[in-house]
Amino acid sequence: MSQSNEWIDENHLGVRYGLKGKIIHHEKSKFQDIIIVETERYGNALLLNNCWMAAEKLEKHYHECLVHPALCGAKEISNVLIIGGGDGGTARECLRYSKVERLDIVEIDSRVIELAQQFLPKIGGTAWNDPRLNVHIEDGVGWVKKAQELFYDIIIVDGSDPDGPAEGLFNKSFFDRCKHILKPGGIFATQSESPEAFKEIHIETIKIMREIFAYVDPLYGCVPMYPSGWWSWTFAAMDSPRYLTPKSERSSNIIDQCKIWSPRWQQGGFNAIPAFIERELAS
Amino acid sequence: MSQSNEWIDENHLGVRYGLKGKIIHHEKSKFQDIIIVETERYGNALLLNNCWMAAEKLEKHYHECLVHPALCGAKEISNVLIIGGGDGGTARECLRYSKVERLDIVEIDSRVIELAQQFLPKIGGTAWNDPRLNVHIEDGVGWVKKAQELFYDIIIVDGSDPDGPAEGLFNKSFFDRCKHILKPGGIFATQSESPEAFKEIHIETIKIMREIFAYVDPLYGCVPMYPSGWWSWTFAAMDSPRYLTPKSERSSNIIDQCKIWSPRWQQGGFNAIPAFIERELAS
Repeated sequence: MSQSNEWIDENHLGVRYGLKGKIIHHEKSKFQDIIIVETERYGNALLLNNCWMAAEKLEKHYHECLVHPALCGAKEISNVLIIGGGDGGTARECLRYSKVERLDIVEIDSRVIELAQQFLPKIGGTAWNDPRLNVHIEDGVGWVKKAQELFYDIIIVDGSDPDGPAEGLFNKSFFDRCKHILKPGGIFATQSESPEAFKEIHIETIKIMREIFAYVDPLYGCVPMYPSGWWSWTFAAMDSPRYLTPKSERSSNIIDQCKIWSPRWQQGGFNAIPAFIERELAS
Repeated sequence: MSQSNEWIDENHLGVRYGLKGKIIHHEKSKFQDIIIVETERYGNALLLNNCWMAAEKLEKHYHECLVHPALCGAKEISNVLIIGGGDGGTARECLRYSKVERLDIVEIDSRVIELAQQFLPKIGGTAWNDPRLNVHIEDGVGWVKKAQELFYDIIIVDGSDPDGPAEGLFNKSFFDRCKHILKPGGIFATQSESPEAFKEIHIETIKIMREIFAYVDPLYGCVPMYPSGWWSWTFAAMDSPRYLTPKSERSSNIIDQCKIWSPRWQQGGFNAIPAFIERELAS
């Protein structure tokens, strides 16, 4: 471990994104390689299998966009499930809604949670001590198999890229099982990769979701530390595309604390589908 | 110059974006440092003063978004001015409209044009041989000073960051002069930097433009090779925010050849203003 700052990079298909900083922790957990970097620009940051996941000052770009279209759109939001999300940011955004009564986080790797609490505590913030939060160290695929039918109002998949421990979170049987444990009026949300750096996975994810759910739409935005900086989240529902329209009684309570998200931003993000993706989804 | 591929990076505030490739040309022109890289992922690419400008396979993300809201929205589009734009991509997109009768490119550095024609010929494509195109190797600031009042239907500023030769293209007297040479029903368009990596310049540019033009709105999108990947273009007009609404008789002729832009994408991009920028612009 160097004491002076160096470049730490994520490499992907002949492109690299680096942050200047110092590695302050490095371990191999049972599931993945975990690095914590103290970066010059964005505070402490987390890498899993050499992919940037989150940084203290660069995480709302991702978490707000994954959470609020779902939480502002569902009929009810009493019971929320997060699969993955070990850094705590998704839980933090969900728990800003007083109507959330129970939040289950199902994270496969306890070390991600422990290291996030130790090195990036601001990302989870008060969520970690919220009595509504239940942390389960388990495989998300197994969790949805055994969960009660029609139990959750919201299911959020906040996993890493589908070539590591998150592999099982991008396929038809997983989405189908999620549909069954979702209540009527509920919303399913997942990060759905970059339309540029992971174009094939992005398109395939949406197409498979459209085989399972009645309404499925991708939302586009920017997460500068992820490959290409261009990112997407995809939302699904059975009774209507209710994720498109935030309920104002919910959004008005959270908008002042948001960095990126607003009802207007969200409307933009759902329309900002690039022409080449729109064509491929139509074919 | 190395014969095997290496990483070539743009560094900005403790963040770097690198492409793997080979430097195939490097010179210092009268105005700037110019590098051409043969990249693995995006074909040949151009760096000015160590900043990525364009690559053969990664340039529509920028050029389409700068051009089409202006060309689809203005009352007439007979006379078009591009300031900068030496790689030819903005000219190419403009010349797709048969109603464009005269296109002036005013580029300060002849070497950018010559090297783009030699190493990235696909970006300009047939534009370089189009009889409607007039290339002027001059300073854009001087050009707008001497141009005839109410002459142009469209003025597009396609310059680099405002700390090199493009410095004079981001201030009040320049915008004011552009307003005077713009016809009624015309549209002024400029790239307006990243809301993340160049937040202050981005906000300042919009605020200054709002002192000059009656209607000014930023459009947001993604250009993966620019700092943070999150980019903006800002459009201005005097009679109405006519850049918001593409004329269908024009858009229908170009949409099939667009990679990113569509009327829907554009509507999204104008709404996708992040909450923190919206707050700062309102203050």
